[in-house]
Amino acid sequence: MRRQTADICRPLLPEDTVVQPVIDVSPPKWHLAHTTWFFETFLLREHLPGYRVFHEQYAFLFNSYYNSLGSRVNRADRGTLSRPPLADVYAYRAYVDEHMQRLLASSDGDPAVPFADVFELGLQHEQQHQELLVTDIKYILSTNPLAPAYWPETPAEPSTTAAAPAAWLPVPGQLGTIGYQPAAGDPTGFCFDNELPAHRAYVDNFQLQNRLVTNGEYLEFVRAGGYQDFRYWLGEGWDLVQSQQWQAPLYWVERDGRWLRYTHHGLQPLNLAAPVTHVSFYEADAYAHWTGARLPTEAEWELAARHFAPATAAGNFLESQRFDPVPLPADAAPDQCHQLLGDCWEWTYSAYHPYPGYQKAAGALGEYNGKFMVNQLVLRGGSCATPASHIRVSYRNFFHADKRWQFTGIRLAK
Amino acid sequence: MRRQTADICRPLLPEDTVVQPVIDVSPPKWHLAHTTWFFETFLLREHLPGYRVFHEQYAFLFNSYYNSLGSRVNRADRGTLSRPPLADVYAYRAYVDEHMQRLLASSDGDPAVPFADVFELGLQHEQQHQELLVTDIKYILSTNPLAPAYWPETPAEPSTTAAAPAAWLPVPGQLGTIGYQPAAGDPTGFCFDNELPAHRAYVDNFQLQNRLVTNGEYLEFVRAGGYQDFRYWLGEGWDLVQSQQWQAPLYWVERDGRWLRYTHHGLQPLNLAAPVTHVSFYEADAYAHWTGARLPTEAEWELAARHFAPATAAGNFLESQRFDPVPLPADAAPDQCHQLLGDCWEWTYSAYHPYPGYQKAAGALGEYNGKFMVNQLVLRGGSCATPASHIRVSYRNFFHADKRWQFTGIRLAK
Amino acid sequence: MRRQTADICRPLLPEDTVVQPVIDVSPPKWHLAHTTWFFETFLLREHLPGYRVFHEQYAFLFNSYYNSLGSRVNRADRGTLSRPPLADVYAYRAYVDEHMQRLLASSDGDPAVPFADVFELGLQHEQQHQELLVTDIKYILSTNPLAPAYWPETPAEPSTTAAAPAAWLPVPGQLGTIGYQPAAGDPTGFCFDNELPAHRAYVDNFQLQNRLVTNGEYLEFVRAGGYQDFRYWLGEGWDLVQSQQWQAPLYWVERDGRWLRYTHHGLQPLNLAAPVTHVSFYEADAYAHWTGARLPTEAEWELAARHFAPATAAGNFLESQRFDPVPLPADAAPDQCHQLLGDCWEWTYSAYHPYPGYQKAAGALGEYNGKFMVNQLVLRGGSCATPASHIRVSYRNFFHADKRWQFTGIRLAK
Amino acid sequence: MRRQTADICRPLLPEDTVVQPVIDVSPPKWHLAHTTWFFETFLLREHLPGYRVFHEQYAFLFNSYYNSLGSRVNRADRGTLSRPPLADVYAYRAYVDEHMQRLLASSDGDPAVPFADVFELGLQHEQQHQELLVTDIKYILSTNPLAPAYWPETPAEPSTTAAAPAAWLPVPGQLGTIGYQPAAGDPTGFCFDNELPAHRAYVDNFQLQNRLVTNGEYLEFVRAGGYQDFRYWLGEGWDLVQSQQWQAPLYWVERDGRWLRYTHHGLQPLNLAAPVTHVSFYEADAYAHWTGARLPTEAEWELAARHFAPATAAGNFLESQRFDPVPLPADAAPDQCHQLLGDCWEWTYSAYHPYPGYQKAAGALGEYNGKFMVNQLVLRGGSCATPASHIRVSYRNFFHADKRWQFTGIRLAK
Repeated sequence: MRRQTADICRPLLPEDTVVQPVIDVSPPKWHLAHTTWFFETFLLREHLPGYRVFHEQYAFLFNSYYNSLGSRVNRADRGTLSRPPLADVYAYRAYVDEHMQRLLASSDGDPAVPFADVFELGLQHEQQHQELLVTDIKYILSTNPLAPAYWPETPAEPSTTAAAPAAWLPVPGQLGTIGYQPAAGDPTGFCFDNELPAHRAYVDNFQLQNRLVTNGEYLEFVRAGGYQDFRYWLGEGWDLVQSQQWQAPLYWVERDGRWLRYTHHGLQPLNLAAPVTHVSFYEADAYAHWTGARLPTEAEWELAARHFAPATAAGNFLESQRFDPVPLPADAAPDQCHQLLGDCWEWTYSAYHPYPGYQKAAGALGEYNGKFMVNQLVLRGGSCATPASHIRVSYRNFFHADKRWQFTGIRLAK
Repeated sequence: MRRQTADICRPLLPEDTVVQPVIDVSPPKWHLAHTTWFFETFLLREHLPGYRVFHEQYAFLFNSYYNSLGSRVNRADRGTLSRPPLADVYAYRAYVDEHMQRLLASSDGDPAVPFADVFELGLQHEQQHQELLVTDIKYILSTNPLAPAYWPETPAEPSTTAAAPAAWLPVPGQLGTIGYQPAAGDPTGFCFDNELPAHRAYVDNFQLQNRLVTNGEYLEFVRAGGYQDFRYWLGEGWDLVQSQQWQAPLYWVERDGRWLRYTHHGLQPLNLAAPVTHVSFYEADAYAHWTGARLPTEAEWELAARHFAPATAAGNFLESQRFDPVPLPADAAPDQCHQLLGDCWEWTYSAYHPYPGYQKAAGALGEYNGKFMVNQLVLRGGSCATPASHIRVSYRNFFHADKRWQFTGIRLAK
Repeated sequence: MRRQTADICRPLLPEDTVVQPVIDVSPPKWHLAHTTWFFETFLLREHLPGYRVFHEQYAFLFNSYYNSLGSRVNRADRGTLSRPPLADVYAYRAYVDEHMQRLLASSDGDPAVPFADVFELGLQHEQQHQELLVTDIKYILSTNPLAPAYWPETPAEPSTTAAAPAAWLPVPGQLGTIGYQPAAGDPTGFCFDNELPAHRAYVDNFQLQNRLVTNGEYLEFVRAGGYQDFRYWLGEGWDLVQSQQWQAPLYWVERDGRWLRYTHHGLQPLNLAAPVTHVSFYEADAYAHWTGARLPTEAEWELAARHFAPATAAGNFLESQRFDPVPLPADAAPDQCHQLLGDCWEWTYSAYHPYPGYQKAAGALGEYNGKFMVNQLVLRGGSCATPASHIRVSYRNFFHADKRWQFTGIRLAK
Repeated sequence: MRRQTADICRPLLPEDTVVQPVIDVSPPKWHLAHTTWFFETFLLREHLPGYRVFHEQYAFLFNSYYNSLGSRVNRADRGTLSRPPLADVYAYRAYVDEHMQRLLASSDGDPAVPFADVFELGLQHEQQHQELLVTDIKYILSTNPLAPAYWPETPAEPSTTAAAPAAWLPVPGQLGTIGYQPAAGDPTGFCFDNELPAHRAYVDNFQLQNRLVTNGEYLEFVRAGGYQDFRYWLGEGWDLVQSQQWQAPLYWVERDGRWLRYTHHGLQPLNLAAPVTHVSFYEADAYAHWTGARLPTEAEWELAARHFAPATAAGNFLESQRFDPVPLPADAAPDQCHQLLGDCWEWTYSAYHPYPGYQKAAGALGEYNGKFMVNQLVLRGGSCATPASHIRVSYRNFFHADKRWQFTGIRLAK
């Protein structure tokens, strides 16, 4: 799993690993080091007798947001740090990996070792940063006027370019249970604290669309003047549309009346059948409003997902190396619910708040999730940048309503 | 009802009615004119044949946020407008009131007139601005180094200065119904669109405190270093505490080791038995966290309120002219739930989102509530600045998590 | 002289005296109090035995920028202070004036009293604020969408509406003397410290235009695309033109292809023969550049002024009550240098730096002028808002290059 | 000369060449490319028949501020561009150098070729960026918490650590001539347009110190509370001291009561005998004020420099590879004026304005100097980062009063 992080960075030049065009996006070098710092801080320092840190100042440089662990580089300044060199960061990774192997060897595979939970968390954390690396690299290269490709070869165009028709699927009203519930087939039994406790939630009858909204459908909204009509927008969204002069999703470019998209393969024609992505919550909500539908709540989404029982294996995840959502085949069964996992994170109209009875962890790891539980929206389902083994139906991702640099998309409800 | 608005402004000088120390606070002159503009725009222009507007440019000056009604003065610039003079604004009020009487006379008391709903909305809107006038005037005078009193006489200190002891009241888990439900005794049958539709919501067993948190209790948090310890705070709250150097609720002042509060009666000693007020959501949440409890959700709050069936008439509202929450008498019944209505708005840990099935109104009035449904928290119960006839258990107020200039307080749940 | 300050404020409503639309502009109430504070602080407190201050907190409220005298209201917050009421400020003026009369009576006309210089400075300071009141009131009323007039009657249009032709007047190169030099006919012998010491300065032969640039001439620059062509502009000026979207001088408004100007008499047609005013240094310099000429230095300006020996009495000053520069009569002698004093402050291309040998005063009054001697440009000659007795050829006014709210104009040199 | 630019960058890693910690500082990669773009744009495109640009988009990426040459990357975004790779920039340099050699060969050494002046300007421009590279690299590495050294070896401490005593040298008053005047021994006869025309300027008798102010002298100011006393400071300087919390010159660090300085060799003890550097104009002026002296004007500086006729060859320039000003030997002749050239740029109290009769060049190169002639101060004499062949007594450098990242120092006058 650690190797996959470095693999993602392999096509980059050292220069690419340093810059930070906006505060949300961290330099790849920082991701490589921060994930390593996580293992060093929470496992090696605590549990490997005699462990000596690789470099005294790395704790200051590569702590992300843990107040419990002291002061750190201001987030906005990550892109001003040329040192340590990339080579030193890779040496740091090797050093920590080697010591982690010693630590694991010492426990001799005993699943009851005291650090098993933290070790699992470190791996999950590594996967989260793999996804961020994919999206941050895209943003970094996209802001460059040369529009370089991360992966120069153009992917074979998926055979389906006509969108499968959208259909509404009814979901029965219920007092269901949401949140993480260990299942027989679950490989690790892992979940984040924010998925707990499982609890009952009531939803009325509703309908969900059987697939994600496509670029073609969203383009109609753009062409109908959706970005020029305040009536579809939440007030803060409309202010943003005007101050940022948004005209379309992030990465869309109009050239001579034709729409292109910046992708990991450089500028590519807009595939009308593929799911729309890189939209903010405001755009997702405005689009839904324009169609007369709405976004689902997270309880609706999860209860529907449990109802339709998606097969995780079938999704379009990081491992596909497409780095882009793909069209639903035109012959997909209209009465099944597709693309629930993978392709795009789906904005819900639910605030990222604690579940009833939520308990954050003790110590520094208590800062992992809980302190972000205000002013953000829940997203569900993972994306084409999510490792397949990382996602599940109870997984709660969260972003502020204006964010667009993740693979975020739209599924309609009514 | 219109007279009450002017009554609130009577102790002010013309100079006081013009200034705007922060963007949230509007000049009293603006409130006086804006509420009038509401009747002119939505009733007289639409329904009184031959009506001529008082002044062509007032629609530009006194439109608050209705995009449907065209451009308007930037909100941050309200305090730069010395004209129209206050006298002209009172003439505007008289002119519109007179024409409203003509309009009402023409309908001859017919409750089925087409504008009955909008007329009722205009009255409710007037009441909302009465509350804002009370809190905005307090803020305006408080920022003045002379700390002038709005109402110079000091109120007779309430006889109780020892706080009634707090007690936990159990509320049974249930699939209850929240949202506005017309009752037999309801005088108007009015509610805002955001209280609809009534719908079922599930809550598990929980407990609610029988009264609001007091100044004395909150002072313990202050003295225990609550504002210096990140562990109690949401991340964005902690950033704010540091950047704004918050040390205590708004209006608290420490002088020679003694705490005072700025009130409508000038600086007064802190009454330890009175409910704490002028706290942000972040402070309310941090305080709750520090005690080991939490804030209720809005469903919990409303279902508890319906369970304990408060008598509206008993609360401390605008009409008491205290302009401050008052202590619960020490002999109050510990097994009843007190102060649910009046005294302080109670922060809930629920986002201000649309209820399932919410429909905004057609036309410009569709902008009244719906477009604010993101990034704000719901508050319940009204305050000492709320007109008594304006509040009900289904009423949803909403503010951003950092706001403190309203009479906002804390009730604990667990 | 004190009465003139109140006279300027007489047409205002109390509401007008409170607001501050931009940081540069102070509320009239503040000017009325601050000039009074000056006499109280530097004269009554120091020299009148037993004097008791009018109000202990006024020193905090009405100190402008004297660090020597302690903390004070932030400049940007002057417009948030509704109190003290305007009536109290007038009472403050009366109280201080009365005590000043006692102080002056006690000195029995002795010109050698120790406070004679500071008293003279207080009067000059009062005059400076009279000019600021005229320009600040104009700005305050201009930002109001109602565009109210300070002085409703329209002035009789001056008989001359055709501009006198411009002519170049040669000035011989010389090693001249600039700075204040007491003259026989000088009534007070007063000057500011920044006019001292008189010293020698060398200028080469140059030419100066015999009058100010007119609105008509400047309009040609506007119409020729001057605000759209970076080549005429200093870099920082061009950035400002773009970020502020300047298209013309301050207060110019285009309506249906016709240019109007906001004046103390409300919106008026642009008089093409009148001097252009309310231009920044950047605009003055760009205009000069466009014509192929340049702005004079302050040494050139003063040596030319001494060469052409203007009669002060002839100018258009505050006492004319026109509040606007007026056209040069068409039959004005072309070989004389007109409008050197009054009408408009003339931007020079000289930095406001200390003269060689400059000594600032001891104590708090040392902060009067010296600490501003960087990043500002010198202006010369006074304006239609300057009291006639306040100006002289050695007078150095100073503003930042972007300021436009004073009566600033353009005289060309080459 | 081109090789020297690359030599300066040789100790850097690719990562170091990309970042931009503040807007004033450009990434080294950008300097390498921009200087190359200068030759391509102004020479090869114009004068080499059939020349094909290296890359069509480099004109957009590497234009600094020439509006005449179209749009360009926002200055603040230079540090977000990871591409082109450093290797491509070196290839760009080689490509342009090779074509420049062809162009020069074609002119066959004819000094009358039409592009001779622009070629000379290109070389001078290259030297200016060599100095900027030295100072920008210092800033980039200094902001890194690891405080890496550009040049790890510590320089041999100069033998003199006691400062030569300061002495005042009289300079006679005169109507002298300043500005560039070609001399017999001048190798190139080059000067910038801002040094022209030579013209007469009058100065009165004055005195100049015989050397630069030292760290030891400046430390006394720091210790005497100079940064805590507003009386020494210009108003805008004092605001900056407070908002930026300046306590000492840039790069000074206090550790356990001992002062260190960040240098190109990492953190080093403060050498009390060496000239103080990295001070803003505000600090230079405040220091001078504190001592009772003042800064010289640029006319004083240049006339003194001509009077004392410094030998250029003797200075401490870029070629010394010290990257730091060095102490004046204790036995230096007290009646000579030392360190006029090299070591530190010397702040003058003169605005960077056009000389009388200044003409900017035609076309895009007219933007080279002229458009910056406002709001900046003149500095004279070059520094330890200036190439020796680049400096002369008429050379006018210019920075805003708050800038500290250049090697700026203080010479006193009175």
